[in-house]
Amino acid sequence: MQLTGQNFIGSSNSASSSETFRAINPATKDLLEPSFYEATADEVNEAVERASKAFGVYRQKSGEEIAEFLESIGDEIMALGDGMIQRCMDESGLPEGRLTGERSRTVNQLKLFADVLRDGSWVDARIDTGEPDVRSMQKALGPVGVFGASNFPLAFSVAGGDTASALAAGCPIVVKAHPSHPGTCEWVAEAIIKAAKKTGMPDGVFSMVHGRSHDTGLAIVRHPKIKAVGFTGSYVGGKALFDEANRRAEPIPVYAEMGSTNPVFVLPGALKERKQAIAEELSSSICLGVGQFCTKPGLVFHEESDDATSFTSFLTQKMQQITAGVMLNEGIRKGYQSGLTKLSGINGVEILARGEEDENGFRGSAALFKMPVLVYLENIEVEEEVFGPSTVLVSSAGKKDTLNAARKLKGHLTATIHGTEKDLEEYSELIDILEQKVGRLLFNGYPTGVRVSHAMIHGGPFPATTNSRTTSVGTQAIYRFTRPVCFQGFPDSYLPDELKNDNPLKILRLLNGSYTRDRL
Amino acid sequence: MQLTGQNFIGSSNSASSSETFRAINPATKDLLEPSFYEATADEVNEAVERASKAFGVYRQKSGEEIAEFLESIGDEIMALGDGMIQRCMDESGLPEGRLTGERSRTVNQLKLFADVLRDGSWVDARIDTGEPDVRSMQKALGPVGVFGASNFPLAFSVAGGDTASALAAGCPIVVKAHPSHPGTCEWVAEAIIKAAKKTGMPDGVFSMVHGRSHDTGLAIVRHPKIKAVGFTGSYVGGKALFDEANRRAEPIPVYAEMGSTNPVFVLPGALKERKQAIAEELSSSICLGVGQFCTKPGLVFHEESDDATSFTSFLTQKMQQITAGVMLNEGIRKGYQSGLTKLSGINGVEILARGEEDENGFRGSAALFKMPVLVYLENIEVEEEVFGPSTVLVSSAGKKDTLNAARKLKGHLTATIHGTEKDLEEYSELIDILEQKVGRLLFNGYPTGVRVSHAMIHGGPFPATTNSRTTSVGTQAIYRFTRPVCFQGFPDSYLPDELKNDNPLKILRLLNGSYTRDRL
Repeated sequence: MQLTGQNFIGSSNSASSSETFRAINPATKDLLEPSFYEATADEVNEAVERASKAFGVYRQKSGEEIAEFLESIGDEIMALGDGMIQRCMDESGLPEGRLTGERSRTVNQLKLFADVLRDGSWVDARIDTGEPDVRSMQKALGPVGVFGASNFPLAFSVAGGDTASALAAGCPIVVKAHPSHPGTCEWVAEAIIKAAKKTGMPDGVFSMVHGRSHDTGLAIVRHPKIKAVGFTGSYVGGKALFDEANRRAEPIPVYAEMGSTNPVFVLPGALKERKQAIAEELSSSICLGVGQFCTKPGLVFHEESDDATSFTSFLTQKMQQITAGVMLNEGIRKGYQSGLTKLSGINGVEILARGEEDENGFRGSAALFKMPVLVYLENIEVEEEVFGPSTVLVSSAGKKDTLNAARKLKGHLTATIHGTEKDLEEYSELIDILEQKVGRLLFNGYPTGVRVSHAMIHGGPFPATTNSRTTSVGTQAIYRFTRPVCFQGFPDSYLPDELKNDNPLKILRLLNGSYTRDRL
Repeated sequence: MQLTGQNFIGSSNSASSSETFRAINPATKDLLEPSFYEATADEVNEAVERASKAFGVYRQKSGEEIAEFLESIGDEIMALGDGMIQRCMDESGLPEGRLTGERSRTVNQLKLFADVLRDGSWVDARIDTGEPDVRSMQKALGPVGVFGASNFPLAFSVAGGDTASALAAGCPIVVKAHPSHPGTCEWVAEAIIKAAKKTGMPDGVFSMVHGRSHDTGLAIVRHPKIKAVGFTGSYVGGKALFDEANRRAEPIPVYAEMGSTNPVFVLPGALKERKQAIAEELSSSICLGVGQFCTKPGLVFHEESDDATSFTSFLTQKMQQITAGVMLNEGIRKGYQSGLTKLSGINGVEILARGEEDENGFRGSAALFKMPVLVYLENIEVEEEVFGPSTVLVSSAGKKDTLNAARKLKGHLTATIHGTEKDLEEYSELIDILEQKVGRLLFNGYPTGVRVSHAMIHGGPFPATTNSRTTSVGTQAIYRFTRPVCFQGFPDSYLPDELKNDNPLKILRLLNGSYTRDRL
């Protein structure tokens, strides 16, 4: 496929701006062809207008029809073949194996939502007969703005989680392409447009606009016909969109996943039994993908002991051995360096590992810091995410300090406890504290893998996200883009199929307070 | 019971302010005894701190324990007897029959949530076995601020909908008593405190503070330990709390139900068949409770015809016959008068009925306006709620104008269609348009009754509410005060009962994508 650099306004390509930009290969700092056209205000407006028009048709599509659309997107992405993967490697610096794996994840995610739509019970149909007869179900919100992340150029980008859940919910989308991988975005956009045509979806169900400047994104969020926004990225970016959305004449929900420091608590029994294994596994988790995961463990709490000393030296050795890796782009690399500089400057911090800076491309080296819990508590910035292959060991004298530090945590995507059964018995309060702080609580695992499934929660209290009551991974994400609508006293034939007496879709419904797939 | 005028800081009474106020009988303008003490900043702070402390205990209570607490609140409210009803009549001007009915509704609402807790399936337990094993469920958010409405001194006040759903979710509450009926609030607060003690709930699970000034409410919303807010009232009040909550260092959700104009569409066939009945029933709905319902029909769209002319004159007659009624307070009466003055001043409006002003107490008279759809579309303020017994007839030349007016509606709590089967066939597009505008769509009914049940949605797009994805009436309201938490790789014995392998609570769970009450 020949890249054009154009915007996708529905199925029409458009390039009316004189402002262009090019992607940069982060491994070499080379500029990549072609130039991409920043979307103009008119182009953004036209994309949203088409989405709004498409909504009238798309919201009437059956679960089966949308399931076929989602699966077709998956097929078309696979059909892009190596060309897309190669472009994605050039733009992201990520290795081939990681990207083919991420492509599978992206396609499987679309299929999982297709399964949910085919079952149909997700709409939470409720029927209360009697006087008056009231029936309710979830319905699509309207056009959604989707902002992809740089660190998952496939799974959290043009055809990523927010796209899958918004399209599954019945919402057309306008995607803001990530300027770090605009060519990959174009490949995937082509696949979605093809799938939309093949499965008879209305023009405007998908659009994608380019833009390095914040104006493009703000124009999407400000448009009166956009009804919700999904975002994955930095705190500064997500919070800005959230604030903008709340300033609108009609405020809309912004689901921003803004990263996290993902505290890990290594309890005494676990340290005794598995110090070397944990050190090895933890260093892999910290440095996976050059530490560029929002679930990277960035804080490791433990209590001082001989075992802790050994654990620390195992981890230090491991972290020292890791060679510099290519980071996603210059901004992320600069951010990482300045995060390390900030941590290094804290009074009372020990620098256990810090690789050499490497100017060959945008590279980042592993780093390991250590500080006593009192220093940690006095420097609240240590809890902020440093995006890259680093972590901070926080050591305390005993259980009281550990629990105290846990109590003072802000919101995070995950927290992890490493322990024995005996540890859990002794630290049961820790579970209780941490489940109030995070979206996902792990035992004897590592947070960097996020399973795409029904029970997964990838979210958490602010500042991890702007809305703790939802998830951006897993099938529950569909509810971010719906709202309940109640029908009172309607003749059966004018009710949606989901609410009709004879339950033609055979979905699970709450009928007068009891769950059943029976007809009335 | 002797009223004290004090604040309830958990189970302690407190009255440290020198600022006091008294309730006013709206039927007589008499000041009522005793004086109520405005809560100080310290009192508000202490109430939230106790709620936060109580949360640690309350969130561990089983569904059965909380169900008993909710039922006990209902029993204690009934045990208050006539004294509470009498005080409520004095403070609200509402008649005895209405208030005993509202008391039943309030008690039944608490019982319905108790039923939901006993079944337990509401937590949306999800289990995905395999690698890794992930399990999620809804958990309580934390302390909730509750702002009651003046127009439902029982069902949307101290023990009203938000209280029932927040307590059911596992959240302690701090209620801001409505200054229009502070004595009723004290009666009900006493009942809740008694129930909390009887059923062994922690001190601080319920607090209530008085305040006429906005500062009391703002102090609740600003407190870092408040995690969500429920509000029923005016657009100005609700939007102010919403904005304040979004300005916090940690933004929190504000569920504000801010009223609505509840458009009614009377289609040609219905007009032909039932013009007199609709005129009679509609006038009753408009004037029920002196028009002081957020679901009062305030806009009636119809198309010009001989039937429409008869309908209009029937409705005019009915509205002219209605005598002035006592409104809730001086502010509401003034707001109603100024709303009528605004409508009367619109160029092109016809005033079909407008009762005499009556200075005997705070009384409001029925009013009926009529304007062509073009005048309506040019005066956007006509779509704003006028709180009181008035409505605006909007006449158009035909279907095109009707659909056009529907398309331009903002968000409302409800919309209603009166029609025959043939009307529905011809106006099927109207259903499609209206379901995008409201939380509840009625056919051949009247919006003023809101059934408390599983399927009810009392909500809708902005500006009807600040969060269209929830309801403030019915059992789905519980999800306003919870968020999902995911447990990964946890030993069975440390999982919540809802997620344990053998499903000890026998709840419905989504197990590897299938709904079942079976154990693993």
